[in-house]
Amino acid sequence: MPLRELQYPTEPYSKVNRMKDRADYALETIHQIVNSCPMLHVSFQSPNSPFPVVLPMIGQMGSFSRPSADLGDVLDLYLHGYVSSRLMNTTRSADAQEEEKEKEKGLPMTIAASHVDGLVLALTPNSHSYNYRSAILFGHATLVTDTAEKLYAMELITNSVVPQRWTNSRVPPNAAEMQSTSVLKVTISTGSAKIRTGGPHDEKGDLEDEALLGRVWTGVVPVYSVMGEPVAGGYNRVGEVPGYIEGWRGEVNKDAEEYAREAVGREVGEKGGK
Amino acid sequence: MPLRELQYPTEPYSKVNRMKDRADYALETIHQIVNSCPMLHVSFQSPNSPFPVVLPMIGQMGSFSRPSADLGDVLDLYLHGYVSSRLMNTTRSADAQEEEKEKEKGLPMTIAASHVDGLVLALTPNSHSYNYRSAILFGHATLVTDTAEKLYAMELITNSVVPQRWTNSRVPPNAAEMQSTSVLKVTISTGSAKIRTGGPHDEKGDLEDEALLGRVWTGVVPVYSVMGEPVAGGYNRVGEVPGYIEGWRGEVNKDAEEYAREAVGREVGEKGGK
Repeated sequence: MPLRELQYPTEPYSKVNRMKDRADYALETIHQIVNSCPMLHVSFQSPNSPFPVVLPMIGQMGSFSRPSADLGDVLDLYLHGYVSSRLMNTTRSADAQEEEKEKEKGLPMTIAASHVDGLVLALTPNSHSYNYRSAILFGHATLVTDTAEKLYAMELITNSVVPQRWTNSRVPPNAAEMQSTSVLKVTISTGSAKIRTGGPHDEKGDLEDEALLGRVWTGVVPVYSVMGEPVAGGYNRVGEVPGYIEGWRGEVNKDAEEYAREAVGREVGEKGGK
Repeated sequence: MPLRELQYPTEPYSKVNRMKDRADYALETIHQIVNSCPMLHVSFQSPNSPFPVVLPMIGQMGSFSRPSADLGDVLDLYLHGYVSSRLMNTTRSADAQEEEKEKEKGLPMTIAASHVDGLVLALTPNSHSYNYRSAILFGHATLVTDTAEKLYAMELITNSVVPQRWTNSRVPPNAAEMQSTSVLKVTISTGSAKIRTGGPHDEKGDLEDEALLGRVWTGVVPVYSVMGEPVAGGYNRVGEVPGYIEGWRGEVNKDAEEYAREAVGREVGEKGGK
């Protein structure tokens, strides 16, 4: 952990402009949201279409050069997946020299990670909201070609799905598997998070309407994800679901429900926002 | 419901190129994924940055001109939220006349909706996968200015959070609320879905390794979202949580768990995929 909390710089493209009191630029907060999100949305510009490409991908932040780095440190994002080389080499610079420099940096991409934590039901539709945690990262992606780094990323990503799964499956990957697996490394330029917690907030006029208060239920429906009872596959021969899976399930299910419930009572960043 | 199942056209930018057996272009399938997703990721190109803008937004598909249209029909996507007018008028055409035409169509955007339905644990990290449903829509967004259409969209979106919530809150919105609420309408050009269901699939070599089969648990951890026990807000005066909320909670919670569990047994689109 660094001595002082590190923050991402606020660039014009990364600054939160609406509901600023919900914004958070701390690396630890942002990395935590990304690493707990089972699916990321990766977006980048296509050379032949006005529509950005959006791909759902599995990813995880880590540091190959310093694997013991924690969430508040400077980290890279490793993505499991494929982006065609045609797209990877896309740059839009008019200047040939600058274009070469840009290409080396990699493909500019925006990565989004979001959790819905609650449905906030207020007196009026307008004051309805969500409790949520949302993180956006901006960076440049390159293909990981170094074998040791690729292995590091594959283990990191596999263990993000279920902790300890890597060593509890058949490893290391063979040559064909290493060949067929693509890993992207995103060097992060900056990022931001937006978080809403708390209960409903209504306008003064509605709060003074006794008949309305007597008629409309207001509060929060907590929302959380559950890792359900495991279902054995067709060729499974291991009788009991292993402890590292069941222990982890119990923990994350408890944490997820607790977060969503506790978020209701935490009126952070709620100065005037809905 | 149309007599024949409608499909979106496969444009170069919308065609699924990897794991094609998981692709689905049926309007009903795609609209169903979008409408059941509590948060969409909306992406569009920024004029001043190589990084696309990505915004988490609430949205819902519907038809203002034919409100009784169902999920398999041609629908528009209504998004609750704000995109600065500076960005809304961004086009990149060199030709002034064409630029004007493009501006009228609106801001080109890509919208992603994803559900994670299960963690598929195989013998090797490489064969690990997710059960998931992912939909991508491509279209042009304009600001809804017609009051009746805006009201239609606001009711549609509010009721997508909790059915019947619109009439069970203080409506209609007053002039200030109508003014402060932005709704975008996205006219869809095309879209695609990608769906994975089923259990783990491993390579022949690993399936013949008796020691490995005896050591590694293989199967699926179903993943689903839960609408938890409602928590009353600070100024709530309605003693019991109303039936339309509790009835809906019971239903969606049952459906979500059932989908995730049943998906494990459904080996659709699994010809050779992992």
